[in-house]
Amino acid sequence: MTGTGVEHVAAELLTALERRGWSLAVAESLTGGAVCSALVAVPGASRVLRGGITAYATDLKARLLGVDDVLLDARGAVDPDVAAAMAAGVRERLSADVGLATTGVAGPDAQDGLPPGTVHVAVATPLGVRVESLHLPGGRAAVRAAAVDRAIRLALVVVREHGSAVPR
Amino acid sequence: MTGTGVEHVAAELLTALERRGWSLAVAESLTGGAVCSALVAVPGASRVLRGGITAYATDLKARLLGVDDVLLDARGAVDPDVAAAMAAGVRERLSADVGLATTGVAGPDAQDGLPPGTVHVAVATPLGVRVESLHLPGGRAAVRAAAVDRAIRLALVVVREHGSAVPR
Repeated sequence: MTGTGVEHVAAELLTALERRGWSLAVAESLTGGAVCSALVAVPGASRVLRGGITAYATDLKARLLGVDDVLLDARGAVDPDVAAAMAAGVRERLSADVGLATTGVAGPDAQDGLPPGTVHVAVATPLGVRVESLHLPGGRAAVRAAAVDRAIRLALVVVREHGSAVPR
Repeated sequence: MTGTGVEHVAAELLTALERRGWSLAVAESLTGGAVCSALVAVPGASRVLRGGITAYATDLKARLLGVDDVLLDARGAVDPDVAAAMAAGVRERLSADVGLATTGVAGPDAQDGLPPGTVHVAVATPLGVRVESLHLPGGRAAVRAAAVDRAIRLALVVVREHGSAVPR
């Protein structure tokens, strides 16, 4: 990786996906569409990106992404298994090869007893789901920006690792 | 309006909606989640914002937002009636009082014979749908940023005009 800005990583992810013939869909909560928007910023994104769902209200995580109501009731929306279910759900519902998801607490207030900066990002591929749990520093804008960056980087790592010789 | 930045207008829109007890959902194409993200940037957005759908691939405008396939086939995705249908569709599917939508050509290339900067934004309320058709100058980033700004401003105008004494 020669650059470190999110624009650069977004372009690298789209290139890595296109090389494998994989499409992408995004499910977002605290990032609110910013992951998807960072990908759309790259010219030619439409060759890879199908779209995204921002399920900001908790009930929409169940309705639009198929996250289990029992899981949401038991753990709340900010949970690694919820992130995994969001990634798998958006992958399936938008007919994409790869699903990328974010959930977390942007702040300024805590949520369900979790401090701002508690963030989970997940990537679902034909081979399964990987989740990364983070504690990000800073205020609302910094947490959201870092979550966007970490989500796109995780997807790039997973696609590069698993993207060769994998059935679609 | 005392400020002009998108952050300020986004905060004003959320305040205007909250005063009326109205919720909001967003459907995006060329803006790719940036309208929704600009609203999530405002602390307390969850009191008003339900979520959003980025239907970047044309088939998702039909599947996720209920835009008529015949309309999409006849006119393409960049069309005022498609913008209106996206706003009405996201309003209904996300159970929101107000739906806000964007579709257009960000560039750098023309699409369906339409030049970059061709953009339609739409707002659906309990009283109907208003569409604004724009020709925005600049490159991909400038067109997308201006589309975000114009969409949020249109929503603010419509909510302020129609937001009093209206049945929910």
